Amino acid sequence: MIRIGIVGYGNIGRGVELAVERNEDMKLVAVVTRRNPEDVKVLTDDVKKVHLDDILSLKGEVDVMILCGGSATDLPVMGPSVVANYNTIDSFDTHAKIPEYFANVDAAAKEAGTIGIISVGWDPGMFSLNRIYAESILVQGSTYTFWGKGVSQGHSDAIRRVPGVKNAIQYTVPIEAAVEEVRSGSEPQLTTRQKHLRECYVVAEEGADLAIIEETIKTMPNYFADYDTTVTFITEEELKANHSKMPHGGFVIRTGETGRDGNKHVIEYSLKLDSNPEFTSSVLVAYARAAYRLAEKGESGARSVFDIAPALLSMKTSEQLRKEIL
Amino acid sequence: MIRIGIVGYGNIGRGVELAVERNEDMKLVAVVTRRNPEDVKVLTDDVKKVHLDDILSLKGEVDVMILCGGSATDLPVMGPSVVANYNTIDSFDTHAKIPEYFANVDAAAKEAGTIGIISVGWDPGMFSLNRIYAESILVQGSTYTFWGKGVSQGHSDAIRRVPGVKNAIQYTVPIEAAVEEVRSGSEPQLTTRQKHLRECYVVAEEGADLAIIEETIKTMPNYFADYDTTVTFITEEELKANHSKMPHGGFVIRTGETGRDGNKHVIEYSLKLDSNPEFTSSVLVAYARAAYRLAEKGESGARSVFDIAPALLSMKTSEQLRKEIL
Repeated sequence: MIRIGIVGYGNIGRGVELAVERNEDMKLVAVVTRRNPEDVKVLTDDVKKVHLDDILSLKGEVDVMILCGGSATDLPVMGPSVVANYNTIDSFDTHAKIPEYFANVDAAAKEAGTIGIISVGWDPGMFSLNRIYAESILVQGSTYTFWGKGVSQGHSDAIRRVPGVKNAIQYTVPIEAAVEEVRSGSEPQLTTRQKHLRECYVVAEEGADLAIIEETIKTMPNYFADYDTTVTFITEEELKANHSKMPHGGFVIRTGETGRDGNKHVIEYSLKLDSNPEFTSSVLVAYARAAYRLAEKGESGARSVFDIAPALLSMKTSEQLRKEIL
Repeated sequence: MIRIGIVGYGNIGRGVELAVERNEDMKLVAVVTRRNPEDVKVLTDDVKKVHLDDILSLKGEVDVMILCGGSATDLPVMGPSVVANYNTIDSFDTHAKIPEYFANVDAAAKEAGTIGIISVGWDPGMFSLNRIYAESILVQGSTYTFWGKGVSQGHSDAIRRVPGVKNAIQYTVPIEAAVEEVRSGSEPQLTTRQKHLRECYVVAEEGADLAIIEETIKTMPNYFADYDTTVTFITEEELKANHSKMPHGGFVIRTGETGRDGNKHVIEYSLKLDSNPEFTSSVLVAYARAAYRLAEKGESGARSVFDIAPALLSMKTSEQLRKEIL
C-alpha cells in the first residue's frame, strides 16, 4: 500500500481523500493542517491529524505528501520545505513563477533524495500533456486552450470584493463560434474577448445600487474589462440552490498541416467535469503513484507531468497495459 | 541532427519522409527497400537507397530506423532483426500478438544495446495514451473507442476479393447516437452493430450481378456480418475522383465517477485526419526523437508509448516546455 498524507484540508484536500478511497493500492494515513487538528473533520477512519508544525513526526509513516495549499502564498514556501523530508505532489499553477518554483523544489528534493512532482492537475496537467503531444506530432500548427463552462474562484472572489456585493459566482464560458472556427483548421487569431464570456451571478446587499455594481464589475481591469461580461442579480437562496456545485472543463485543440499537399489534422482533448476539485484530486493521486515508484527506484529531484512516463500512473503492470489497452 | 532511415517505402514510408522534412532536428539519410533500390523514387535529395539485404552497410550512418512494413508478415521478422543493429520505431498493430512481438524485440534490443519502440501511431499510439491517462485518473468508469469516419484498408481489400468486384473502398463510420450516449456518462453496453456503420463504395466488373455482390459483402463473416453495411455501386472514375484520399480519425471517451456524491466526468480525445498515413508518420517521427535520446542515455530494450516520458518527444528543452506550455 502506498501511504498518502494530505497537507491542507480544503476542497482539494477532501478531494484527495475521496480519490484515495477509489485506489485500492493506496491508503490515507495522515492529514496535516495549520488549523487545530482536533477541529478538522475528516471522512476516513484511522487517519492521524497532525499540525503542520509537527509534520516531521510522520517521517517513516507517509510515502507521498499531497500538497493541497494555494499557489499564491502556501506552495512557494510549503513545496520546498515539505519535499526536504517527503516525496510530494502539488498543483502549483502560477504560470509565470513555474521556473523559479521548479528550481526551488528541485534543489531541496535533490538534497533530500526525494521526488517532487509539481503543477499536477488538469491545467496545468492534463491540458499541458495534450499541448506537448499535439505540438510534437503536428510540428507546424496552432494550439488553442478554452476553459469552461466552469466556476473561476479568482473571478468570483474579485466580484465579492465589490462594495454592495454580498455573494457572487462567476462562470467562464468558451464562445462556441470561436471553438468551431478553431476546429475548422483555419488557425484564426482570436482576441481574449472572442474566446470567452464571463457570466456573473451576484447577490447584492439590501439597498445597494445595482447599476453601479454592474458597472464596477464590467469595467474591472484584468478580470472583466477585456471580456463580454453578463451580470445577473439573484437571491442568496437562488445562489445556494443553483450555483453551489463546482463544475468545470475545457478544450485543448491543435490544428496543423502535414506533407506537401496541405493535408490538415485536428487533435482535440476535452474535459467536462461535475466537480473541479474532485477531478483535480484524482489526477494528483495518480501522480502520487508515479512519485512513489520513482522514489523506490532511487530517483530524486523535481519533475513535471512532462517527465513522467504514462505507465507509472497506472495500477496495472506493463504486461497488462500492453495486453489490455495498447 | 538525428539521422533517420526508412525501411519500406509505401504510404507510411513516404509519410515519414514528409514528416522528417518538417522536423528541423532530423534528416532522412537512407531508404531501405525490398524492391530494386534504383526503382524507388523518393522525394528528397541525397538519400541513399539500399536493398534490405544490404541494410548493415548503413551502420554508423543511421540513428533510428523507422520500420514501415505491415504487421501481418513484415514486422514480426523485421522488428527483431533490424533492432539487432539499429534503434527502431514501428507501428505494429496486430493486437493479439503485441506481447509476443514486444518480447522478441526486447530480447534482440537488449542484446544489441539498442532501443525499439513498438506500436507507435494513433491506434495503437495516441489512443492508447488517452486510454491509460483517463483510466488512471477515473479509476471507476468505462472507456469507449470509436473509429472513423475513415478508410479501412483491410475491409476495402476484403471487398476487392469478392467475385465480380473490380475496385472498392470501405469507410468505417461511428454512429453518432452511440457517441452521444457515451458522452452522457450513462456507460452503456454497446454491441458492435450499435457503435459503427460500414459504408462500401464498389466498382463492379461489367455484367456482374450486383445483387449477389451486395449480399456477399453484407454477409461476410468477421468483416461485415456484425454491422449495418451499405453498398453503393459507383464507376471507376467516381472512385478516383471522390474516394482517393485516406482520411481517418476517431474518439476515445472515458466517463466515470469520483467521490461519494456521484460526480461524473467526461474525458474525450478525438482526431480528425485528412491523411491517415501522414499523421501516423508524424507520430512515428516524434517517437524517433525519443528513441534517439534514450539510446544516447545508454538505455536498451523494447518500449511502448506507455514507457516514454512526453518531454522526450519534443524539440523544446525541459526549461522551455515548463515555461511555455506547462
